[in-house]
Amino acid sequence: MSTEYIKIKNHINGAWLDESNGQYEPLRNPSTGHVIGEVPLSSPATSREATAAAAAAYPGWSAMPLPKRMDFIFKMHRAMQDNLEMLAQSIAIDQAKHIAEARGEVGRVIEILQMACTIPALIQGDTVQAIANNINGRLIKAPLGVFCGVAPFNFPALVFGWFIPFAIGTGNTFVYKPSTESPLFMQKMMQLLCDTGLPDGVVNIVHGDREVVEAWYEDDNVAGVCLVGSTPTAKAIGEGCGRGGKKTMLLGGAKNFLAAMEDAPMDLLIENILMSGYGSAGQRCLAVSNIAVVPEIYDDFLARLLEASRKITLGDAMDPDIFMGPVISASARKRIHDYIDIGLAEGATLALDGRNPQLPEANRDGYFVGPTVFTDVTPCMRIAQEEIFGPVLNIIKVGCIDGALRMIRNHPLGNGACIFTQNSFYTEKFINEADVGMVGVNVGICAPHPYLPFGGIKGSLVGNNKVQGKDAIDFFTQSKVATIRVVDPRGLAPAAATTTDSSVRSCVAS
Amino acid sequence: MSTEYIKIKNHINGAWLDESNGQYEPLRNPSTGHVIGEVPLSSPATSREATAAAAAAYPGWSAMPLPKRMDFIFKMHRAMQDNLEMLAQSIAIDQAKHIAEARGEVGRVIEILQMACTIPALIQGDTVQAIANNINGRLIKAPLGVFCGVAPFNFPALVFGWFIPFAIGTGNTFVYKPSTESPLFMQKMMQLLCDTGLPDGVVNIVHGDREVVEAWYEDDNVAGVCLVGSTPTAKAIGEGCGRGGKKTMLLGGAKNFLAAMEDAPMDLLIENILMSGYGSAGQRCLAVSNIAVVPEIYDDFLARLLEASRKITLGDAMDPDIFMGPVISASARKRIHDYIDIGLAEGATLALDGRNPQLPEANRDGYFVGPTVFTDVTPCMRIAQEEIFGPVLNIIKVGCIDGALRMIRNHPLGNGACIFTQNSFYTEKFINEADVGMVGVNVGICAPHPYLPFGGIKGSLVGNNKVQGKDAIDFFTQSKVATIRVVDPRGLAPAAATTTDSSVRSCVAS
Amino acid sequence: MSTEYIKIKNHINGAWLDESNGQYEPLRNPSTGHVIGEVPLSSPATSREATAAAAAAYPGWSAMPLPKRMDFIFKMHRAMQDNLEMLAQSIAIDQAKHIAEARGEVGRVIEILQMACTIPALIQGDTVQAIANNINGRLIKAPLGVFCGVAPFNFPALVFGWFIPFAIGTGNTFVYKPSTESPLFMQKMMQLLCDTGLPDGVVNIVHGDREVVEAWYEDDNVAGVCLVGSTPTAKAIGEGCGRGGKKTMLLGGAKNFLAAMEDAPMDLLIENILMSGYGSAGQRCLAVSNIAVVPEIYDDFLARLLEASRKITLGDAMDPDIFMGPVISASARKRIHDYIDIGLAEGATLALDGRNPQLPEANRDGYFVGPTVFTDVTPCMRIAQEEIFGPVLNIIKVGCIDGALRMIRNHPLGNGACIFTQNSFYTEKFINEADVGMVGVNVGICAPHPYLPFGGIKGSLVGNNKVQGKDAIDFFTQSKVATIRVVDPRGLAPAAATTTDSSVRSCVAS
Amino acid sequence: MSTEYIKIKNHINGAWLDESNGQYEPLRNPSTGHVIGEVPLSSPATSREATAAAAAAYPGWSAMPLPKRMDFIFKMHRAMQDNLEMLAQSIAIDQAKHIAEARGEVGRVIEILQMACTIPALIQGDTVQAIANNINGRLIKAPLGVFCGVAPFNFPALVFGWFIPFAIGTGNTFVYKPSTESPLFMQKMMQLLCDTGLPDGVVNIVHGDREVVEAWYEDDNVAGVCLVGSTPTAKAIGEGCGRGGKKTMLLGGAKNFLAAMEDAPMDLLIENILMSGYGSAGQRCLAVSNIAVVPEIYDDFLARLLEASRKITLGDAMDPDIFMGPVISASARKRIHDYIDIGLAEGATLALDGRNPQLPEANRDGYFVGPTVFTDVTPCMRIAQEEIFGPVLNIIKVGCIDGALRMIRNHPLGNGACIFTQNSFYTEKFINEADVGMVGVNVGICAPHPYLPFGGIKGSLVGNNKVQGKDAIDFFTQSKVATIRVVDPRGLAPAAATTTDSSVRSCVAS
Repeated sequence: MSTEYIKIKNHINGAWLDESNGQYEPLRNPSTGHVIGEVPLSSPATSREATAAAAAAYPGWSAMPLPKRMDFIFKMHRAMQDNLEMLAQSIAIDQAKHIAEARGEVGRVIEILQMACTIPALIQGDTVQAIANNINGRLIKAPLGVFCGVAPFNFPALVFGWFIPFAIGTGNTFVYKPSTESPLFMQKMMQLLCDTGLPDGVVNIVHGDREVVEAWYEDDNVAGVCLVGSTPTAKAIGEGCGRGGKKTMLLGGAKNFLAAMEDAPMDLLIENILMSGYGSAGQRCLAVSNIAVVPEIYDDFLARLLEASRKITLGDAMDPDIFMGPVISASARKRIHDYIDIGLAEGATLALDGRNPQLPEANRDGYFVGPTVFTDVTPCMRIAQEEIFGPVLNIIKVGCIDGALRMIRNHPLGNGACIFTQNSFYTEKFINEADVGMVGVNVGICAPHPYLPFGGIKGSLVGNNKVQGKDAIDFFTQSKVATIRVVDPRGLAPAAATTTDSSVRSCVAS
Repeated sequence: MSTEYIKIKNHINGAWLDESNGQYEPLRNPSTGHVIGEVPLSSPATSREATAAAAAAYPGWSAMPLPKRMDFIFKMHRAMQDNLEMLAQSIAIDQAKHIAEARGEVGRVIEILQMACTIPALIQGDTVQAIANNINGRLIKAPLGVFCGVAPFNFPALVFGWFIPFAIGTGNTFVYKPSTESPLFMQKMMQLLCDTGLPDGVVNIVHGDREVVEAWYEDDNVAGVCLVGSTPTAKAIGEGCGRGGKKTMLLGGAKNFLAAMEDAPMDLLIENILMSGYGSAGQRCLAVSNIAVVPEIYDDFLARLLEASRKITLGDAMDPDIFMGPVISASARKRIHDYIDIGLAEGATLALDGRNPQLPEANRDGYFVGPTVFTDVTPCMRIAQEEIFGPVLNIIKVGCIDGALRMIRNHPLGNGACIFTQNSFYTEKFINEADVGMVGVNVGICAPHPYLPFGGIKGSLVGNNKVQGKDAIDFFTQSKVATIRVVDPRGLAPAAATTTDSSVRSCVAS
Repeated sequence: MSTEYIKIKNHINGAWLDESNGQYEPLRNPSTGHVIGEVPLSSPATSREATAAAAAAYPGWSAMPLPKRMDFIFKMHRAMQDNLEMLAQSIAIDQAKHIAEARGEVGRVIEILQMACTIPALIQGDTVQAIANNINGRLIKAPLGVFCGVAPFNFPALVFGWFIPFAIGTGNTFVYKPSTESPLFMQKMMQLLCDTGLPDGVVNIVHGDREVVEAWYEDDNVAGVCLVGSTPTAKAIGEGCGRGGKKTMLLGGAKNFLAAMEDAPMDLLIENILMSGYGSAGQRCLAVSNIAVVPEIYDDFLARLLEASRKITLGDAMDPDIFMGPVISASARKRIHDYIDIGLAEGATLALDGRNPQLPEANRDGYFVGPTVFTDVTPCMRIAQEEIFGPVLNIIKVGCIDGALRMIRNHPLGNGACIFTQNSFYTEKFINEADVGMVGVNVGICAPHPYLPFGGIKGSLVGNNKVQGKDAIDFFTQSKVATIRVVDPRGLAPAAATTTDSSVRSCVAS
Repeated sequence: MSTEYIKIKNHINGAWLDESNGQYEPLRNPSTGHVIGEVPLSSPATSREATAAAAAAYPGWSAMPLPKRMDFIFKMHRAMQDNLEMLAQSIAIDQAKHIAEARGEVGRVIEILQMACTIPALIQGDTVQAIANNINGRLIKAPLGVFCGVAPFNFPALVFGWFIPFAIGTGNTFVYKPSTESPLFMQKMMQLLCDTGLPDGVVNIVHGDREVVEAWYEDDNVAGVCLVGSTPTAKAIGEGCGRGGKKTMLLGGAKNFLAAMEDAPMDLLIENILMSGYGSAGQRCLAVSNIAVVPEIYDDFLARLLEASRKITLGDAMDPDIFMGPVISASARKRIHDYIDIGLAEGATLALDGRNPQLPEANRDGYFVGPTVFTDVTPCMRIAQEEIFGPVLNIIKVGCIDGALRMIRNHPLGNGACIFTQNSFYTEKFINEADVGMVGVNVGICAPHPYLPFGGIKGSLVGNNKVQGKDAIDFFTQSKVATIRVVDPRGLAPAAATTTDSSVRSCVAS
């Protein structure tokens, strides 16, 4: 995999294509800052070419018997199992996700594929016999056509897994736009898909920027659009798709909460905060950010957190012996630095400053930010309200569980929240009242297993639909209903109801 | 009920209120054209007052144990059973729906309430034990907050039934805007709701126009908006709600199709077309409009249809002996007349002209259009493409089932389509390939029974969600997921995984 | 209701009938020992007459459209709401269930009826489109025919609710044998059913003894048999029905467990033990019996339990001011007394002796046993192994939760088990590892709400099926599957696969 | 694979074992009659040794996190894909199933494994939040312990697939008794299971006769017993398991029906009857047997059926160029010959006699019966009532569909029934009214795809449970319900309800 120059291509209707407009953006290794390749910035015309290819593939793909379509999902699963390490490296190279986490991400997608193998159970429709004499009802979970998806840089494999297996497993075709900052995984994965014999046009890739996406809003070939990204992007797509009448599954931004109660298991708590807050250099939609701590354990907690945070090592994402890799880009690093300034200006205490971390020689030009801890934070500060997307923790003292819940309820986003406690009442109260989509108990990251759906509420989810689990099947299908009357051929022209009979007209009512 | 002047009021937080801005619109009886009352045109401020009331009622209502909440649904069901005739008359008066159909509509809502009584089965969440050692997963179908709904004039009871029982049964609160052309049903129904002891603010009513709705897009108290209306309105709300990040369930316009095959049971076919095409004076989102007929039966079919259509009687909606009442307004009548002109200009043959129907003396000033039949229609004519919403039928000759399916596939809307045939292959092919949300076989109106969802696709549905059936519960709840680890109090500080262990980090991956 | 002589009758095919064999058994009021009426001991011939009536009613009832059948379930619900007090008194009279508990029992059946109203959601079958080209699959939850049910004396209303609404709501017909010791409820309830207009023969009642039941094993009219009763009876019916090929739902005996942990909320614990152990005079299949207590709280617990137990008052079941009524019969009282002797002989300490309770003058001849508490009990004593079915508690000291779980695991029955704790780990460990069908946490009686199924495992359930909830629908229907190929009438005789083509033969494989 | 002597062994707790009692039975190749190996006739002690091993493996296996357990199901699927031909040959050798059909059978099991991969979707339990204040309900689909299974000779792979993946995937362990006439598949398959790393004791094999099975009825280690076999065997096991309180899934015998209507697609009909009636030499639980034909097509049908039947070739099961192999044994052949005599004695006409078929030289000592057709059969003849299990067809003339349905309704068995028609009314009427568990339309064998359950009713199913599909998960789990109250640690001793409060006691009611 190593050092060759990476030329990213579009993939449309079974062919690897250079972008005809000739526009390319450099691809960098964030661990070193070096240019390692290039990625197309495709035109709206290319975007529409891809949706046209997907639309052309749709009739054949959707008509394929379900067991045959499922064979491809099983083949995808097998291909990923057999190529785990290659795929993990593809993530570690361009996104600079730590290699151990990259393996973890690919492993998680293999689990998602296993969940996609449950489609035959979940896609079954319903029957109602004898709704009336000689009339049955039937519900079919029918595919819808072409779906398009947009991925963020931070989980190139995961978001592929959330969108494509469920979309195509249910009979739709797909156009996918990876992030221009982490396109390599999908270049590798697409080749594996081709090798399974997947028909041309079922999955297509178009690299580029927002104009690739905006071309979909009024494109008659497009049934719906999926996104994992920021809330403003989600709302912009929601608006465009509302105008165009498209279906949407739009996961937005996050600001995740943690409540540490007086009976929190302390070793586990500290360990989990390190993993959640500093893993992926804090660039995770479920990274913990605002940590509410009750007075009974506050001092002990803070001392242990700072001590452990100071031991975190930084370096190249491919080095298994360090803990943290870089953030994605120079501009990302600048945004994080700016937030640290904001926090200081708002009166928070910078208990640990990650702005000038110690680094290996080879990584001096990489985009690194070390573990950063604010104390004396209040919920209404901008650092507690806005998504920083870096390894920055806000410690907030609260009187009891109600204070933590109030902090969550009053926040405009509602992605994830965790509590650390051994008490059943706190556990259930937090599950019920934490105003988020995903709750964790004694876990640092409350990402549901793929057996269950993933997504937030309030500002973290635009529209109705979450990814993964049963919700994924619901999104990628419509509930098509048939009302079926049969007529006895031996006694046609039965005593037809007269038009003024009210019992008949009630049937007419809708 | 009779002749008293009808003063429609808003209902907010348990109180019947006059609209403070003082703006009212006259309410007319379409059978006579007479003014019979007035309806408020509420201000955005009133709209927000209602959502604030609903938001205030939400915490208490959503925390109520499910069996207690269900008691109210059972009480609503009982109240409607006990007041069927009174409610039916309320529809026949202001909307001028034929009294027999009005009874049918209320009867259908009683069936919807019965389906809402299945909420305890459908709202159950999921459990996954042992996702990992000592970690369980749990999915809760949690309510979301305040939903708002907008009804069209033509089904004041039905749309109430689609929105409110499911919204509040699942724990949300509601603000409802009836049509200013048919507000009386909800005035009566709301009083029945109050009589069940429903807590104040759980259901609120605000009458008015689009500015009532537009106030919701950026209202922090609003979780989602529902509509049954036209496609342009659905898209406008979709756009506003996308911008505001709101959930939506938006049923748009329709142009419904019928395919008559060579083995169609002819008596049943004619009977059903009369009911579907002329019932409610064609003002139904499932009224049949484009009728594709194969050559084998074309002449016989047309002769019989025209003969039966000519026998249709028109008159006052409260007169049980006539078949058809008026359309909703003078402007609706004009729109229909305009479409007849368009059809003629496009070259269609006006086989039956309903523009000057015979009427009882008392109804000379009502808004009537008689049965109208065009022949020689082609699918691309405007009369075959656009929603006329009146008793106008287009007869289109097609060679075989494929011609009928092509007509449907190429149409921008996708609400309902029916086939009349006795053949299994035609039946299944039509169910699979008719590109609509609702299919009928040997029925004139393919409205699913409330046990199953109701809604279209393509331009007939903006967004993902349909009304009724299981889909209703899905829309009014979120899939909230908890990932729950328990920690043995007898052995705290177990061998915690170290942070560089890749199997642990894989769990971290998302 | 009062003092008239109660003549219980059979009800077959819509008619109230005296038993033709002339055999009757006296019916007594256990609060006083007085004879208050008589109940038939029907012959096998009468039993078969009833199943024949149910079989004759089956074709019409099962063919009735589902919404029409559901109307009867809604009417049953309404009739019970409107007659709650009358029905409660019918239970308090012959079974001598305390009037407050009798009201509670009827109230619970009303909740069960609400769950039965979810049948339209739960009875929906499945569809799989395109299992192969032009082949669909469909699953129908079809009724099976005639079911028969046997009730115990202690819950005459509840067991009716578990069996009949679900059996008939799904399209079957029923023959019911109430207990000869508590037949009055069903006499009253049957009349209410008749008043709803239920067709003759859909529900039939035959009073009597085991020979009524044994007649069903080889009766071709019978599809299945349900029982709530003792384990030996359940096994005997299981054996007879296995031989006859009948379906079964057989709930057997119980010995329920409680584990009190060091952090148990003590007031709640004591309160719940009184309700669970002494309510219905201990004659409940979920009455707590074996109470495991950890050393940390043992002494305090025992002192408080004994103090509270001594305050329990006994008297007539119709007297709302007393706590406990009588047991069902003189022989039941003797069996309980015998077990007290056995416990003493085994070396347990009789900390509270209920054999000679203080009673009101009028109840001196009633069948009363007061609260009884054994300490120094070990799990292998007969009093801890066998079902006493009276107000007798066994206190067992255990070292920790593992001791409590071992006690449960090693017991041949597995109905219910409760834990009192505030700790999440104990909670989840107990839910997972307590080897029973129903678990409670901080509740004295772990009866699931009717939204969820009810039943045990091991010796407490013979066969696979539980009552209530979704399981009830599964039991009363079969999963009938259709594999449907359609054949294009325009191209008959397609290239038929040749018989040696292995891809075709694989389809043949089963 | 070829010619080596086949020594079948038991497999218990991970080890291949000779049977200690030393009793073995010869294993023959039915195509030639030659002895090719031997199979143990194990003792009851060996049977109990196996259940003890399975019981010892149960705690570890059932506690394994679900994703880890599913990994084994995916590995089994992969192993079967990679060894399809080897496994198919193992079936063709000892059972003498035609090699093309043997490949088909293994292919079908691979599809069953794919369905077993949906367990994570189907095993999810339910949650009901807020059943009352601070009380939640939870339903877990928990495993039950050790299941035992008994296979017939005719589908050694299929029955393995029906039982073991679902049993162990849901957390149980298993003891399997293959048929002594076709043990080779499981010997091969077990080795593949071992190679996946499956823990010892999770799957065990014991070869032998009925005493192996009878040992399970009172074995405390056994939770349930599964069978695919004859109805008398199913009833005997049902009786024994009822007495022992075991769960059962017992598929019994069959007599399958076909109705040919006046519009039947004739080529397809004849083709399908050949496959269904003569495939596997008629030794299939879904082989067509009684064929009802309406007068309109009778003569044409019969002429074509006889002509096609006469062309069927017989020979060695491993020869891909012949159509039919032998029946399983000399005694099976004698039973079929006896039934031909019975039919003649009952007055049926032997239109085609298969008793002395033409055979290749090498197969003169094999157990062959050729295609046999009776006409002039009436439904009450023994040949139409009893299961012949050989290539014998009964042609029955009926007046219309009602005659075919009456024939089905009056038969004591109810496994499968097919109709050939193009009419929707006939289709739906047959699906509803054919009194069987599996219906086919225009297919010769109505075996449901593994996505849906498989099983009959009436005498064809003893007890409640079918194999495959969702039903399989229901059978191998119990619906364990927890009722969970949490108690606020900040306000313990809340206003506890007093014991005479009826609203509280209602909660106590069960």
